Amino acid sequence: MTPAADAMAAEPRCGRGASIWEARRVASVNPPRGMRDFLPAEKARRERVLAVIRDRYSAHGFDEIETPVMEEYSRLHAGIGGDNEKLAYNVLKRGLDADAVRRAAEDPSALTDLGLRYDLTVPLARFYASHRAELPAVFRAIQSAPVWRAERPQKGRYRQFVQCDIDVIGDASPRAEAELVVATLDAVDALGLEGATVRINDRRVLDWMLDGFGFIAGERPGLLITIDKLDKIGPEGVIAELRDPQGSDSSAVDAIEGFLRRPMTLEYNPYGERQIRKLLPPDAPDEIVAHLVGIGAAVAAARPAAPGGDIPLVFDPFLVRGMGYYTGTIFELAHPSVDYSLGGGGRYDGMIGRFLGQEVPAVGFSIGFERIVELVSAMAEGSAPAVVLVHDRDVPLDDLLALKAALIGEGSRVRLEQRTKNLKALLERAASDGYTAFATVSAGTGRDSLEVKALD
Amino acid sequence: MTPAADAMAAEPRCGRGASIWEARRVASVNPPRGMRDFLPAEKARRERVLAVIRDRYSAHGFDEIETPVMEEYSRLHAGIGGDNEKLAYNVLKRGLDADAVRRAAEDPSALTDLGLRYDLTVPLARFYASHRAELPAVFRAIQSAPVWRAERPQKGRYRQFVQCDIDVIGDASPRAEAELVVATLDAVDALGLEGATVRINDRRVLDWMLDGFGFIAGERPGLLITIDKLDKIGPEGVIAELRDPQGSDSSAVDAIEGFLRRPMTLEYNPYGERQIRKLLPPDAPDEIVAHLVGIGAAVAAARPAAPGGDIPLVFDPFLVRGMGYYTGTIFELAHPSVDYSLGGGGRYDGMIGRFLGQEVPAVGFSIGFERIVELVSAMAEGSAPAVVLVHDRDVPLDDLLALKAALIGEGSRVRLEQRTKNLKALLERAASDGYTAFATVSAGTGRDSLEVKALD
Repeated sequence: MTPAADAMAAEPRCGRGASIWEARRVASVNPPRGMRDFLPAEKARRERVLAVIRDRYSAHGFDEIETPVMEEYSRLHAGIGGDNEKLAYNVLKRGLDADAVRRAAEDPSALTDLGLRYDLTVPLARFYASHRAELPAVFRAIQSAPVWRAERPQKGRYRQFVQCDIDVIGDASPRAEAELVVATLDAVDALGLEGATVRINDRRVLDWMLDGFGFIAGERPGLLITIDKLDKIGPEGVIAELRDPQGSDSSAVDAIEGFLRRPMTLEYNPYGERQIRKLLPPDAPDEIVAHLVGIGAAVAAARPAAPGGDIPLVFDPFLVRGMGYYTGTIFELAHPSVDYSLGGGGRYDGMIGRFLGQEVPAVGFSIGFERIVELVSAMAEGSAPAVVLVHDRDVPLDDLLALKAALIGEGSRVRLEQRTKNLKALLERAASDGYTAFATVSAGTGRDSLEVKALD
Repeated sequence: MTPAADAMAAEPRCGRGASIWEARRVASVNPPRGMRDFLPAEKARRERVLAVIRDRYSAHGFDEIETPVMEEYSRLHAGIGGDNEKLAYNVLKRGLDADAVRRAAEDPSALTDLGLRYDLTVPLARFYASHRAELPAVFRAIQSAPVWRAERPQKGRYRQFVQCDIDVIGDASPRAEAELVVATLDAVDALGLEGATVRINDRRVLDWMLDGFGFIAGERPGLLITIDKLDKIGPEGVIAELRDPQGSDSSAVDAIEGFLRRPMTLEYNPYGERQIRKLLPPDAPDEIVAHLVGIGAAVAAARPAAPGGDIPLVFDPFLVRGMGYYTGTIFELAHPSVDYSLGGGGRYDGMIGRFLGQEVPAVGFSIGFERIVELVSAMAEGSAPAVVLVHDRDVPLDDLLALKAALIGEGSRVRLEQRTKNLKALLERAASDGYTAFATVSAGTGRDSLEVKALD
């Protein structure tokens, strides 16, 4: 089933004897398929993680911006968004009459003028083109906001999810990449996920190598998809796929095979030009190698390793990253606790030019917020005391609100609960909602006679 | 032009000799019509205001939740949303083919299955119906999130804007209203907008009065629209409109006239049943009057006035509030600095029942975030020092990143800027972006030799 067809599939029905009416009633209160409600505990956790990330990014000199969730249809479908364009939610034009709809049968895109963004990069390019005169010469942007994709819902994939990007626009030097990598690692550390590593490559290295091996330019997109599976299927798997009967020129495959079987990555401890060249065919372009060396040295200066330890940067000449718009450096964020990437990014120097009619260098790093939120399970709550006041039914409302106001004035967070038969259940729920203390209130209890006890 | 037709109007064109190509290029980088980009300074201000409001609401025992921006079309168009339903953005079904589009000419709603929410109340009712078993018996929700309405763009009205709501679900007593009013006033105070007042009424008072005067039930919606203009056109204006040739029964208009000319509102300092009844026709229902008195006494207990001062609560028997779903108490937030309301809300005991098949009491207060953000112009920045490092072109990148890392490690926020000819302009921009200090960096400058100076 294609994502689009899937998106139109019927709502799931309740099984096992539920009446049709019952099934409809239950379905009708769920969020739309593939989208989520967040209850208080989960919402609080997400906000805490987001606050840490934004605080760290801000410390590194990035500034938060916001764009509308909708962009014009033509912008979202200009070929920049790759496969994501097909997954966009499009918004129906307002005020369509029967004739307009009939005419649109030949071209359904006439039904829509706006769409929901599927990433934060296309809106950022549009934003920068619109506001360049009001922004610093080198603009460092933070965006943390939802995006929408009509993907087939599956575990860990949602149709609305939060992306958290930093981008540097207007700086072609390795300084931009180094600032992104250092800020990202700092944010990940601050979340308690120490030990993360950034894998780095340059899309031009890959292009240059593939050309040199003798692959033809037209097969490059398919080739990159195959090489991207290296982590999962290993060198043997990649070679086998390339040797497929409909596959590539066999002398080119022979040439790449030698390189795929070498030690493939280089940890920075430290490395210079000589070490990087060892992983590449002879005569790798100086400019690209120098850019990679510059990034490594700058990251090392900002995050000096413990004696004998490694800088958390790994050069990987076969790192691919899917997006077609990358033109230079590409990164991926890895963590030892999981075997999937926690984020990534790269240089996309060409994209803003499409909006502005003038080339502007740009590079971004997108942290995988939804994946990170699942890893960061045990973050400390805020430290303000949180008190549940459990009151008898007959306590006058005025007294109750005066008591609540007094505790709020002392800096507490306060929830009122009328006493129920099962006090234990009531207190357990409050504790799970983050409350740390409780007090019982009867008629006549005042602030002085209130006994606040710890909840646990 | 209807809002829907307006929404389809062409993009504005640049005038005065701009070529067509130029006009198109400029238009193509703007956000969609009626929607806004937020640059760093404005985004930071919005986030600070939101953080204060959320912090205060949380102190008062409210818990934040989140729902997807989209809801099913049928839920958004069930008659609950009033006029806002017509302003909804609807999302085009995915995977429509030419036949499906042709068939939809008779019924354009067949083109859509989802819509963007136009308020936070319909999604909250759906959320509560879905998750009631996981929520406390009395659930106090915070929602601060964007909503979308395809309104005719005009000053201060946007097609995407943030709403900031608190709601109490599951409490039919005046405690719910009192907690909402006190939390709202506390949030407004914390933003530096002291002196706000809440006007209060009960929709049932109004209904009961209008019935008593002899108006027929069928004309009530139009009648409420006219009475809602009382602030703007005064009693004379309202009476004149009601006496219009196609207007109401003249004996009913005579009856309401006497009440419209009385002192119309009552400030709480304090008031009891006897004072409230003075503003109403004889025999006002006991239950409603007691509910109003209860709210007043509880708000007064939580916010005792200075000696001789007033409690910031005003009873206004002709307060209307537009939404059709209100079933009891209604409020409006006023501030002496502006002549429009800064928020409002009310009881909507019937709505959740539509989703759940069971009546659940509910009451909410929505603060006018966009209006408040415009009033709160001068909020203090965060207190962390923010330093711009202005560096010469020849400072090695490693040294620069090491210096930046050292300052971040000391708790600063740090931005790197390469020195330009116009240093003054560079520093002025940094100051307007919230930076408070700067230092110049030449080749060889280290942390010890760095001189950090205040920016002003």
